[in-house]
Amino acid sequence: MKTQSKNWFRQLQGELIASYEAIERAAGSDARFELQSWERPGGGGGTMAVLRGQVFEKAGVNFSEVHGEFSEQFRTTLPGTEASAGFWASGVSVVVHPRSPQVPAVHFNTRHIITGKSWFGGGADLTPVVADDDDTALFHEALKGACDAHEVADYASYKEACDRYFFLPHRQEARGVGGIFFDALNSGDKQADFAFVQQLGRSFLDVYPRLVNAHANEPYGEPQRAAQLRKRGRYVEFNLIHDRGTRFGLETGGNTEAILMSLPPLASW
Amino acid sequence: MKTQSKNWFRQLQGELIASYEAIERAAGSDARFELQSWERPGGGGGTMAVLRGQVFEKAGVNFSEVHGEFSEQFRTTLPGTEASAGFWASGVSVVVHPRSPQVPAVHFNTRHIITGKSWFGGGADLTPVVADDDDTALFHEALKGACDAHEVADYASYKEACDRYFFLPHRQEARGVGGIFFDALNSGDKQADFAFVQQLGRSFLDVYPRLVNAHANEPYGEPQRAAQLRKRGRYVEFNLIHDRGTRFGLETGGNTEAILMSLPPLASW
Repeated sequence: MKTQSKNWFRQLQGELIASYEAIERAAGSDARFELQSWERPGGGGGTMAVLRGQVFEKAGVNFSEVHGEFSEQFRTTLPGTEASAGFWASGVSVVVHPRSPQVPAVHFNTRHIITGKSWFGGGADLTPVVADDDDTALFHEALKGACDAHEVADYASYKEACDRYFFLPHRQEARGVGGIFFDALNSGDKQADFAFVQQLGRSFLDVYPRLVNAHANEPYGEPQRAAQLRKRGRYVEFNLIHDRGTRFGLETGGNTEAILMSLPPLASW
Repeated sequence: MKTQSKNWFRQLQGELIASYEAIERAAGSDARFELQSWERPGGGGGTMAVLRGQVFEKAGVNFSEVHGEFSEQFRTTLPGTEASAGFWASGVSVVVHPRSPQVPAVHFNTRHIITGKSWFGGGADLTPVVADDDDTALFHEALKGACDAHEVADYASYKEACDRYFFLPHRQEARGVGGIFFDALNSGDKQADFAFVQQLGRSFLDVYPRLVNAHANEPYGEPQRAAQLRKRGRYVEFNLIHDRGTRFGLETGGNTEAILMSLPPLASW
């Protein structure tokens, strides 16, 4: 199962990279992802891929497979660590900050974590500068479609969890227009859970480029660009103040560059 | 004593505003601070002043005087709250992000907090894009001068506390070139403590414009501007991940705009 899921996450990283580079090429840009491998001192490592292009001002697609022992302090916060502090985790995570304020930013990630227990987690959410009802509907429908095709997934509760999670209490603002978020998928049928996680990846691979292509050539002016940079400031606030993955990574000595790859190329306050 | 210190903080806010506006005028800019008053639902409030000018891309000078009751959760973290959860606090805080990467950014604040106990806190630190030994020396000497003139202040330990505090562990980088930081000044002689706090304010009022005027007209190019925006990204990381004042303010329902006034006008990752 470890091999299966890790191979899938790595494959999906490759497919996402190919997809975004193809969008750059179609726009007449020869921007490519730069890949950087990193090793985790405690075990494992990953490959960080960052593109700074024309359509995508900054896009990051990370793969990681890490293993080792949780610190005593951290161990208590996760299930399945009663008998042993050992863990294995693999995943793929994506954050895209498009150059045009007409194109929504997006985040996606899926992961598989094994302690004494084994579970999948992940999610995807869309952050437009100004919400577009058609885009929002298309994005939500794609995620709903992936969930509805798999009995192990519960779209309604995943959608609600996403709205609850991606919220800035100090601003009383949502980060974006939501999506889905699930933290501990373990139906008892690992292959069924994994099949859903794979489909979610394929749905994301398919849907986001459709939003990009629909808007990448729309004109915009300074006011929209300024609004985008302010919106990105909120994104930074969320990730550094609230995001559990970011804080977890920084506090457990993860790879700083890979963790903070999610931060926008330019933001304003 | 409350009246004395609050009046001083408000006076210093006014003098800092006048000083920075004079620098803008001398540069041929008519940019002025915009003042915005805010009230704290639990008691008190403040005045936030923000300038977006030519020399100063963004400068914030906040005054506040708040009072009320700490939450039970928060109360235990502060001294003097055994008998009562009541508190009073007043202070002035300054963050300046100059437009030119040749001019260092700066932070200063002093505050007076009263619970069952009473103490002063504060500090100042300098964040150049590229450290300049002469600037660093001038800034440190000004702070040392203020400390050395007052028996209640201990420059060496304040300087060390500053280096320890303004450090990004996840980057293994200092935020800037340091300054001083003191958290709980209570020598037993309140007037002596207050006299030091006033002198520190005057020293800061004097020294920073000298650094600004020394460098504001130096030429710079895109590489220096890019380095400044990256350095500002680190500033954001420090403030949102580590700064106790920021986290305290956001977690206790402070005024978000006033708390996050410290964030730079533009930052990159």
